[in-house]
Amino acid sequence: MAINLHPALDNGIAPTSESFNGGVLVCNCSDRPVRVRIEGQVAHNHACGCTKCWKPDGAMLSIVAVAPTDKVTVLENGDKLKVVDPSALIQRYACTGCGVHMHGPVERDHPFKGLSFVHPERFEGRGWMAPGFAAFVSSVIEAGVDPNQMGEVRGRLKEIGLEPYDCLSPALMDYIATWTVQHRAPQSAAQQAAAETA
Amino acid sequence: MAINLHPALDNGIAPTSESFNGGVLVCNCSDRPVRVRIEGQVAHNHACGCTKCWKPDGAMLSIVAVAPTDKVTVLENGDKLKVVDPSALIQRYACTGCGVHMHGPVERDHPFKGLSFVHPERFEGRGWMAPGFAAFVSSVIEAGVDPNQMGEVRGRLKEIGLEPYDCLSPALMDYIATWTVQHRAPQSAAQQAAAETA
Repeated sequence: MAINLHPALDNGIAPTSESFNGGVLVCNCSDRPVRVRIEGQVAHNHACGCTKCWKPDGAMLSIVAVAPTDKVTVLENGDKLKVVDPSALIQRYACTGCGVHMHGPVERDHPFKGLSFVHPERFEGRGWMAPGFAAFVSSVIEAGVDPNQMGEVRGRLKEIGLEPYDCLSPALMDYIATWTVQHRAPQSAAQQAAAETA
Repeated sequence: MAINLHPALDNGIAPTSESFNGGVLVCNCSDRPVRVRIEGQVAHNHACGCTKCWKPDGAMLSIVAVAPTDKVTVLENGDKLKVVDPSALIQRYACTGCGVHMHGPVERDHPFKGLSFVHPERFEGRGWMAPGFAAFVSSVIEAGVDPNQMGEVRGRLKEIGLEPYDCLSPALMDYIATWTVQHRAPQSAAQQAAAETA
């Protein structure tokens, strides 16, 4: 049984272009598509297995990156956008026409405050930062993946160069822990990362 | 600067004995020590960087394993035990004399329900299961470890054969995700693991 991780992963990962300087994200609607401008390259692009990120049909994982929220501008048809879950850390603005998540700012006090989560596969152009790791991989079981298939899933991710993690990457987990200790939050950073990010 | 992970790690990990069939955990008190019997070998023994697990003085990590709660018996001086945080998933019974956590049952509905967390280094005897991985490693930053030292910490763990994770191991994370989907809990397994385990 072939594993469909994601169309942007299964057939070779497109390389990052040094000259990529942002672009326009477009939803799936043929009528009045939502268009969102991102200025500059995205950061921390990764595959994600969490159940809240938007994924294209049939994909096991999402592809998600961040951009500074002040570099994100809704250009057209923003009236179609609605936040999926206002109680979530990431305010995921989804197109009410096609369901694609167009941008997801973090507004609460959190290490990711001031960043917006976007799906770079929705860029009209190419050259956006290639994904660098896979996060929340075990969570794909919650979306219906057979637990017995997880060895194969992690093996395939390693094969294409994406180290699989069941939380975020060590660099991001360390960043969150550092922020947490600096802000003296009472709960552990690992708790915070997983409880609030997804 | 030398890294003091844990006395049971830094000077070579003692091997598991196939004939180990349980024993008695003893706290640090010279007067009226608490004694807790564990029947049978412990399971899932690992190093843990979370801020809630008991650690010996100077150690960066704890060593923690599980045993079925019905195999755990307080033998002596149980009047000295008190739960550290009654709101936590793990009911950590600590000795009020010396502070050592003696047993920590999970009583709430959770994939770990029916298991008790124990620190096998407190066994009088040897042969308890050797630790197999390191969990919640990034959380040591919250206990004061310099974030710049984390590469060295993870490198040292790999060197002694303990794969470092910032949550639990893939096998345990998959187990939690599987339990979660079977119980149709609304939050993600990764969330649940990190939010409720530590």
